Amino acid sequence: MAAVEVAQTLESVFLRHPLEIVVWANEEGGKTIGKGMSFMGGDPLKLAANQRQAGDIAAYVELHIEQGAELDRLGLDIGVVQGIVGIKRWYVEAEGFANYAGTTLMNRRQDALLAASKFVVLVNDVITSVAGTQVGTVGKMQALPGAPNVIPGQALFSMEIRDLSMEKVDQLFTEIKRRTKGLSEESGVQFQFEHYYTSPSAPANKFIMSLIESRVVARCYSYQAMPSGAGHDAQSIAQIAPMGMIFVPSKNGVSHAPSEYTDPALITKGANVLLDTILTLDDVD
Amino acid sequence: MAAVEVAQTLESVFLRHPLEIVVWANEEGGKTIGKGMSFMGGDPLKLAANQRQAGDIAAYVELHIEQGAELDRLGLDIGVVQGIVGIKRWYVEAEGFANYAGTTLMNRRQDALLAASKFVVLVNDVITSVAGTQVGTVGKMQALPGAPNVIPGQALFSMEIRDLSMEKVDQLFTEIKRRTKGLSEESGVQFQFEHYYTSPSAPANKFIMSLIESRVVARCYSYQAMPSGAGHDAQSIAQIAPMGMIFVPSKNGVSHAPSEYTDPALITKGANVLLDTILTLDDVD
Repeated sequence: MAAVEVAQTLESVFLRHPLEIVVWANEEGGKTIGKGMSFMGGDPLKLAANQRQAGDIAAYVELHIEQGAELDRLGLDIGVVQGIVGIKRWYVEAEGFANYAGTTLMNRRQDALLAASKFVVLVNDVITSVAGTQVGTVGKMQALPGAPNVIPGQALFSMEIRDLSMEKVDQLFTEIKRRTKGLSEESGVQFQFEHYYTSPSAPANKFIMSLIESRVVARCYSYQAMPSGAGHDAQSIAQIAPMGMIFVPSKNGVSHAPSEYTDPALITKGANVLLDTILTLDDVD
Repeated sequence: MAAVEVAQTLESVFLRHPLEIVVWANEEGGKTIGKGMSFMGGDPLKLAANQRQAGDIAAYVELHIEQGAELDRLGLDIGVVQGIVGIKRWYVEAEGFANYAGTTLMNRRQDALLAASKFVVLVNDVITSVAGTQVGTVGKMQALPGAPNVIPGQALFSMEIRDLSMEKVDQLFTEIKRRTKGLSEESGVQFQFEHYYTSPSAPANKFIMSLIESRVVARCYSYQAMPSGAGHDAQSIAQIAPMGMIFVPSKNGVSHAPSEYTDPALITKGANVLLDTILTLDDVD
C-alpha cells in the first residue's frame, strides 16, 4: 500500500525512467501461478515471452516490515537492508547403541541422545564464537526408540545455518563438523549429515543501499544497517537486477499473524524513504 | 529349569525345612492373573485365603540370567546380587519461547531445546560425578513445534534414576534440580519436573548374600557382587521374606529376545550355587 501511495505521489512528477509497481500476489497461497494469472484475467501462455532478463531493470527497491523484533526492540525507525541471508539445512543422524537403561552402566553406554545434546550445545558454541549476525538452529529432535527406560540408540534432528555470506555458512559448518569428530570419538556415537536445502544469499546492491542510507539520514530518521533473516521476493529479483530493501519495525517482531502491527507513523517514514530513494535513483544515468 | 533340577536332586535328601519351587508364570503376558489361574486349573477365588504373610517364608533364593552384559564382558561365572535397584521417573518440561529462526538473533533466543540439551549433559555429569553403579537416563525427547526453521519453544522429555539406595536416588535428583536452577537463569528457559513413577529398591538379605558368596568361593567360581538394574519377582518377595539372588551371565547382555543365550556350563555353575545355598540354608535354625 505504501508503494502504491509513492506511485500516486509520483504521478505528477516527470520521471526520467519508467516506474513499475509490482504486487507480489499469492506468495504463500495454494493456487498455481497459472491458475492465479487466469483468475486475474491474464494468459499464462504468454508468460515465457514476457520474462524479464538480466539488465532489463535498472534498480529494484522494496519496502517491507522487518518480520523480526530488532528495530522494535531498539526503537529505530528504519532498517537499511544489507541483503537477504542464505540458508543451508541438514538432516543429522546420531547413531549410538540402544540398550536397557537398568543394566547398562554409564561408562558402557553409546547414548545417541546424550551425544546429540552435546552436538546442539556445540552448534550454539560455534555459531556464537565469531562476531556477526549469523544464526544456527536445531529445531527438530527425536530420540529413538524413545522409551524412558531405554538408552536412545538413535537421534534424528535438523540443523540450519543462515548468514549474508554463504562462505561464512560453509566455514561455520566445517567447524561444526570438525568438532563433531571429537564428539564421536569421545562418545562412540557416529554422526551423518544430509544436506537437503540451500537458499543462496542475495546481497543488496551497495550503491542502492548507500543511497537508501543517505535518504534516511537526510530525513533524520533513526536506523541501522541489517540483514534480512527472512526470505523476500527481492532475493529472486536480485538475480537479474540491482536490489535494495527498506525495513520498518514489526511490533514485537510478529508477522504472518493477526497481531502483526506497524505504527502508521513508521509506515509513513518507510514510504518517505522509498519515495526519496526512487526520486534520487531517477537522477542517476 | 535349573531350579527344577536342583529340586529333583534334593528329592533324595532329607531337608529340615519345607522347600517350594515357584514358577513365575505370565510375567509379561496379556492374560489377567485370574484367567491364567483358571486356565491352569486353579481357583482365583481362593487366592486371598492363600496369601503369604511376612514371616511365612524363612528364605527365598532366585537364580536368573543377568539381563546385562557385565558378567559376560568381565568373563565372570556368577553375580552375587546385592539387591534390585529402585527407580524414580519424571516427565520434564522445558519452557522457552518459540520464534522464527531467521530473524531472531542468537542472544535474543530462549531456545527450549538448547536448554534441554544442556540438561541432558548435566544429568550425565551429576550421575557420573559420584562413585557407584547408579544410572540416569533421558530416553525420550521432543522439541516443539519441531520445524527446522523455528526455535523450539518447548521440549518434553523423560528422566529416570536408578540405584540400590533410594536415598542416593533422591540426593542425585536434588543435585540435578540445584544445577538446573543455574541453567534456567542463564537460558531464560523454565524447567518443570513431574514425578510419576517410583519402584522402591529391594536390598538382598545380607546373611543370604554372604552365604551365596561363600558357596561360590567354595566352588572356586569367579564372581562379583553387583546390583540388579532390572526388576525381578524377588523384589516383591523381599517385602515378606529374606531374599537372595544368583546371576549367571547373559551373552552380550541380551534378554527377552530370541538371541538370549547362556552357556550350559555357566547355567550348571549357577545351579550348583543354588543347590549349595539351599543345602546350607537348610542347616540354619
